[in-house]
Amino acid sequence: MSREQASSPSETRLLNALAAAGISRPAAEVRDLIAGIAAGPTRRDPLEPLVLIGPDLPPDAAAELRALADELAASYDATIEQASAAGGRLTALRGELKRLGVDGFVVPRNDEFNGEYVPRSADRLCWLTGFTGSAGMAVVAAETAAIFVDGRYTLQVRDQVDTALFAPRHVTQEPMGDWLAETLSAGQKLGYDPWLHTADGVKRLEKACAKAGAELVALEPNPLDTVWTDQPPPPLAPVVPHALDYAGESAADKRTRLAETLKKDGADAAVITLPDSIAWLLNIRGADVPHSPLPLGFAILHNDGKVDLIMDRRKITPGLTGHLGNGVALHERDAFGGLLDRLGADGKTVRVDPAVTGVWVANRLKAAGATVQAAADPCTLPKACKNDIEVAGARSAHIRDGAAVTRFLAWLAREAGGGDLDELTAAERLRAIRMENDLIEDLSFTTISGAGPNGAIVHYRVTPETNRKLEPGSLFLVDSGAQYLDGTTDITRTVAIGAPSDEMRERFTRVLKGHIAIATCRFPEGTDGGQIDALARHALWQVGLDFDHGTGHGVGSYLNVHEGPQRISKAGGSAAMKPGMIVSNEPGYYKTGEYGIRIENLVVVREAAEQPGERKLLEFETLTRAPIDRALVDVSLLIDGELDWLNGYHATVRADIAPLVDDETAAWLKEATEPIER
Amino acid sequence: MSREQASSPSETRLLNALAAAGISRPAAEVRDLIAGIAAGPTRRDPLEPLVLIGPDLPPDAAAELRALADELAASYDATIEQASAAGGRLTALRGELKRLGVDGFVVPRNDEFNGEYVPRSADRLCWLTGFTGSAGMAVVAAETAAIFVDGRYTLQVRDQVDTALFAPRHVTQEPMGDWLAETLSAGQKLGYDPWLHTADGVKRLEKACAKAGAELVALEPNPLDTVWTDQPPPPLAPVVPHALDYAGESAADKRTRLAETLKKDGADAAVITLPDSIAWLLNIRGADVPHSPLPLGFAILHNDGKVDLIMDRRKITPGLTGHLGNGVALHERDAFGGLLDRLGADGKTVRVDPAVTGVWVANRLKAAGATVQAAADPCTLPKACKNDIEVAGARSAHIRDGAAVTRFLAWLAREAGGGDLDELTAAERLRAIRMENDLIEDLSFTTISGAGPNGAIVHYRVTPETNRKLEPGSLFLVDSGAQYLDGTTDITRTVAIGAPSDEMRERFTRVLKGHIAIATCRFPEGTDGGQIDALARHALWQVGLDFDHGTGHGVGSYLNVHEGPQRISKAGGSAAMKPGMIVSNEPGYYKTGEYGIRIENLVVVREAAEQPGERKLLEFETLTRAPIDRALVDVSLLIDGELDWLNGYHATVRADIAPLVDDETAAWLKEATEPIER
Repeated sequence: MSREQASSPSETRLLNALAAAGISRPAAEVRDLIAGIAAGPTRRDPLEPLVLIGPDLPPDAAAELRALADELAASYDATIEQASAAGGRLTALRGELKRLGVDGFVVPRNDEFNGEYVPRSADRLCWLTGFTGSAGMAVVAAETAAIFVDGRYTLQVRDQVDTALFAPRHVTQEPMGDWLAETLSAGQKLGYDPWLHTADGVKRLEKACAKAGAELVALEPNPLDTVWTDQPPPPLAPVVPHALDYAGESAADKRTRLAETLKKDGADAAVITLPDSIAWLLNIRGADVPHSPLPLGFAILHNDGKVDLIMDRRKITPGLTGHLGNGVALHERDAFGGLLDRLGADGKTVRVDPAVTGVWVANRLKAAGATVQAAADPCTLPKACKNDIEVAGARSAHIRDGAAVTRFLAWLAREAGGGDLDELTAAERLRAIRMENDLIEDLSFTTISGAGPNGAIVHYRVTPETNRKLEPGSLFLVDSGAQYLDGTTDITRTVAIGAPSDEMRERFTRVLKGHIAIATCRFPEGTDGGQIDALARHALWQVGLDFDHGTGHGVGSYLNVHEGPQRISKAGGSAAMKPGMIVSNEPGYYKTGEYGIRIENLVVVREAAEQPGERKLLEFETLTRAPIDRALVDVSLLIDGELDWLNGYHATVRADIAPLVDDETAAWLKEATEPIER
Repeated sequence: MSREQASSPSETRLLNALAAAGISRPAAEVRDLIAGIAAGPTRRDPLEPLVLIGPDLPPDAAAELRALADELAASYDATIEQASAAGGRLTALRGELKRLGVDGFVVPRNDEFNGEYVPRSADRLCWLTGFTGSAGMAVVAAETAAIFVDGRYTLQVRDQVDTALFAPRHVTQEPMGDWLAETLSAGQKLGYDPWLHTADGVKRLEKACAKAGAELVALEPNPLDTVWTDQPPPPLAPVVPHALDYAGESAADKRTRLAETLKKDGADAAVITLPDSIAWLLNIRGADVPHSPLPLGFAILHNDGKVDLIMDRRKITPGLTGHLGNGVALHERDAFGGLLDRLGADGKTVRVDPAVTGVWVANRLKAAGATVQAAADPCTLPKACKNDIEVAGARSAHIRDGAAVTRFLAWLAREAGGGDLDELTAAERLRAIRMENDLIEDLSFTTISGAGPNGAIVHYRVTPETNRKLEPGSLFLVDSGAQYLDGTTDITRTVAIGAPSDEMRERFTRVLKGHIAIATCRFPEGTDGGQIDALARHALWQVGLDFDHGTGHGVGSYLNVHEGPQRISKAGGSAAMKPGMIVSNEPGYYKTGEYGIRIENLVVVREAAEQPGERKLLEFETLTRAPIDRALVDVSLLIDGELDWLNGYHATVRADIAPLVDDETAAWLKEATEPIER
């Protein structure tokens, strides 16, 4: 093999590293791999993705290749976040829209996979506007543009976005329909990318257009991508098997089981576009986005149990093909349309979830002659109901995670008095302790580390600019979690720094009463989370207080930390609770400008241990293991049953965690879990 | 005036009565009035409707005219309930369908006003099938027919209907779509009467037809009416003003207020078809159906506050025109279409409620060129929020009603020991006592009087065949209410006959705990009844019990005993609670074949007396006044706050009711409301 010729210093470094590693692949191919690796997140082991270049790379060569990827990643981030300096990007997009003969274009935050996180390659909203929030949508017209965000982001959007270019609007108070009516004339065309808008979403866009009398037109390719000349490639992270020891059910069994439900519902196939559904169905995991172990791709499940998996072959690790087995055929992305066309040509009935799948899929199927059955992703409900192995894994992961949190809390108790700790150092300490755990892969989301008034900001993310010291007489709220191979965790503790005020203790105790009401409730089969949500709020309501978020969200099994269909929320429409569903129990109270309180454990639904009556009862088993700050409990506000729960919980925490921690932590733990007496 | 010639004995009686009364109207006109009066229900004063024939009739003539009406009413009932002897009616309908070229026809229970009660003239389902339940739908095809009922009526339908003619089906477990798919072929036509199916309902019918590939076609006139040759005429009951002293807001003010909301929503007018909405809007009441003081008719509210009222002029009492005022124009039913056509010709935007209005209205409007705005009846929410005068009236009505119920309970306590009482005698005694009350017009629904196992049938209606004795060791459940000019009542009490079992006391006390949880709860503005429903069930859930009905329904002000949009129910989608809304608080427990328990008070939403926190709190004020059976309370299951509520409630009942009752009742009341001690 002849050494290729280098055209730049980084090319020289690449060629040198390949030579050192004895890699014979063409440099251009490796360059694309590095670009794809750079486009993904960095996980616990930054060298792991290099397996896509070659197995067992020599350390020096691996370090050099990783360094090249890191430099490229930094340059991606820099150019994306550069935003539209002097509006150049906006001008370029407008030029393209004019060329296409459309009068406006919608740029949502989400990508075609509709997950919580988008890879750099799909960070279109940030590239265009500079806005980095997790939800939002820009609309660009010929002369004006607007960006629609929810209440969490009304301040941030003004910090990050040039409001002379993009008028910030509140998504519900100043809806898009009104803006379109002001901006577009009847008969004008509003473009959208049919990959990025679901069937349900297109209906909403059509409704918004109706006010203006404008026409909604699908544009492909996305005109923003056309003018985003240095758009990073889609991420390339190794796709690996999720072992049966953690998954508890083979992918073949899952495929067979779901194929039966498709048959029963009269569907020949289902197109599955949620990466966590695909990961669950095929017992695979990836690392294409931060914090969720997702391999981005699409799948078609046929009602004979066979699956077409549409996924970049370059990220398929050597062992994976055998793991997937004969029932799963691999295809590149450009084959997806043809697979849908074949379903149409065969006159198939195909299930597509109108709430999560880009309308491109249903449009293509219909055009090809298929019958589209609009119904929920068939993986959603079975994925939510964890099997016994997954529940056992969750228990184990929560004990290890609880040991880390307990070590952190003990450290905090020792160190916080000094007055030197701040939100960043605390979050970093917690991360570092957690990363020592077995089976950990990543945090499950960016830690919320809120001191004093920052704790009252529900979706707070600490930055060097907002970083606060943990001051005596304040509360410190820390909401964090991790991805373990055997389970996903999510826990919030609120800790008194120094002596808390009576008001803090009273309100913490009311939040605790709500937490205990959920933890201890029993309910008949068929009950959904909307029905029990008020139990978490009742003690706060009594004194005119409440919190403005749901009481609980579903949690995956080494998957998304937010998953459906289960939730505990006053918003209706959630699914009935079923055994094996994991859900958070996290009531809170937030005093703007002063402090925030939240107490969060994860719980798993199970059949009640006692079945005293006529109806099959379900109950929750609390999974999370870490002390709740006794200094914040006003025992006079607890009734006996509540105090019994707290003392019992602390006894369990002590028993499970003490064996796993150092002596110093164990001593603190003993004190922190002493029974409270009246 | 010359005496007209009689052609039959009843005609002779009519002419004689008219002559005696000095009535100069043509006999044919009076005959039609009598027929219309006979087609309506009999209220407290059976002579009242005769005002439509003439004022101040001599007693003998009035009695004779009433007797004629009663005979006619009995003949209506007899022929309707005769059902389809030998299937003659079904055969006739099939002949008409064949003539029209359709392959099937839907016969719902409801009429074009979509209320809880239908007049004799619209009792099509009973006429065709013999089924008298309050909900159901028959579908007639060329060879077969089916009747769809819910779980309440699966036994009753087999008793009343010839199942060789109509196959009984459970409306959700054996849905109409499946039956149609078995029965109709692709391309066949299923007819429906567009007056009797709402826009939402037609969508459901279309969905059901889709499975069969059948076509849904609107038929006018209703082919069943064509073959129902002796169909009674629509009812004629006097329409009377509802005094401002009870209504609390003038109709003119209501019209102006609602016109503003129409303007705000961009509507030029709204078509209102719910009789209780029209009654509320115009401060009028009628008596066209049992138990609800409704004048059947339609209205168009224009956004200048003017109203077109479509209502038979013959039932408009002399004073009513002045009460309605210049802003209300009266029209006969045959003018309705023309009024809609004019809205269309003028290019108006017209609000129509797709959930309650027959699709005929929207179809006619669209055909005439109007834009139909599908949105809730504009009266629904303002009607539900009672003003201060209405709330004061409700308090007063509930105290008088409570005195009647207390007299009944005292009588029951004295008499039940003898073992001679039965469900019918008890219900009749309660009715008789109530009818002595001031301002009473009617019962608000047929009393549910359930002894022993009959109490476990949630929608039980006693008949001579099912009538049971009140036996020692059993529970007696009585759910009843009345229509007073100043308010509508609805109360359930469950009474131990002799000594109750420990199980009865335990379960009664758990139901009571749920009742108290609702009675005492406070919640922030914006909370809906779905959120608090679980509070009523929590104590039952703990021991694996529950009840299969909503916890509470909205109640009108001298209007329907069931009204929306407020309710307390696990089914989502209810409206947020607002001050002035009246709702029932009626948890229960039912042990099939043994006993039923329900404790029902009406409550009114108000701003909480204390506002201790950040959120505006609402709470319930209990309106109902009658003792709760102390013999059924197991005090060991009550926490202190619950016992305080019960004793406080009983103190209020005693204070309010004792002055209104006889000494014997007062002595019993004193005992029945003694504070319970631990």
